[in-house]
Amino acid sequence: MRVGEPPLPNGRGSICQPALYATGMEVPKAFEICPIGWVRSALKDRTGAPRQGWEGAPNAELEIDPAFVQGLDGVESGQDIWVLTWLHQSRRSVLQVHPRGEVQNPLTGVFATRSPDRPNPIGLHRAKVLRVDGSCRLQVEGLEAIDGTPIVDIKPVLDREL
Amino acid sequence: MRVGEPPLPNGRGSICQPALYATGMEVPKAFEICPIGWVRSALKDRTGAPRQGWEGAPNAELEIDPAFVQGLDGVESGQDIWVLTWLHQSRRSVLQVHPRGEVQNPLTGVFATRSPDRPNPIGLHRAKVLRVDGSCRLQVEGLEAIDGTPIVDIKPVLDREL
Repeated sequence: MRVGEPPLPNGRGSICQPALYATGMEVPKAFEICPIGWVRSALKDRTGAPRQGWEGAPNAELEIDPAFVQGLDGVESGQDIWVLTWLHQSRRSVLQVHPRGEVQNPLTGVFATRSPDRPNPIGLHRAKVLRVDGSCRLQVEGLEAIDGTPIVDIKPVLDREL
Repeated sequence: MRVGEPPLPNGRGSICQPALYATGMEVPKAFEICPIGWVRSALKDRTGAPRQGWEGAPNAELEIDPAFVQGLDGVESGQDIWVLTWLHQSRRSVLQVHPRGEVQNPLTGVFATRSPDRPNPIGLHRAKVLRVDGSCRLQVEGLEAIDGTPIVDIKPVLDREL
């Protein structure tokens, strides 16, 4: 949650504060996620960004932290990949939105939408690798994430997912 | 990283320890991610789990934390969803693997594979909603995540991703 956000609708102070369960389940925990790299893009702010990669998003660069470049071995130009990002400008207290930000669309739960505002703002972007530059830079086609967005994972798209 | 794991191959003590950049970029940060629910499945441990949902995975239940159920409004039976999980038994220091765990497959970067072992072990599972039970439980078809796996996000699959 960002500073200055209102309390969560569920009355908790933090999105990651453990809930008590009536079902005898394990107590929820929080996990630490960290950037493996950053998006470099001509898109500089969220208001200018298309909602999906195929809606006119520009090509972009994925700059991978040198500490993780061994993990890129086998990623090649022409491949379709999933880029998972941390949508760092999102509001984590939001549970319902008007889809696509249009008020005539009825309020809908964020898990039924691709809104960037959601409890864990992980972005899921499908992109094609255009080129691998050096050991740390992937040029990709059509990515709607803004410049500076942390990248948290990259996975190949599997045939069965196409 | 789990207790007892060897130091990371990059010589850092923690996967989330900031790296210093030569490019004048912002200093990397870590983010807190928290479960919005848990997988309930007959799969009890990782060794018995299929590698992908379509490789014989059983149906499973997604039990959503009551604090987040407002976010489910609009998720309906018959829909295809992405279930994002936190693969809590993964080794976060691993950057290269033999794909599918078979040693005859040459070592490959984890970002070119779907290995659960990776720096940020986010699982990406496509599933079909079979039924919504009450306000908190989704029954889904063919999920390879094991019982007790934290769920961190749910998103609709978009037509363009099919």
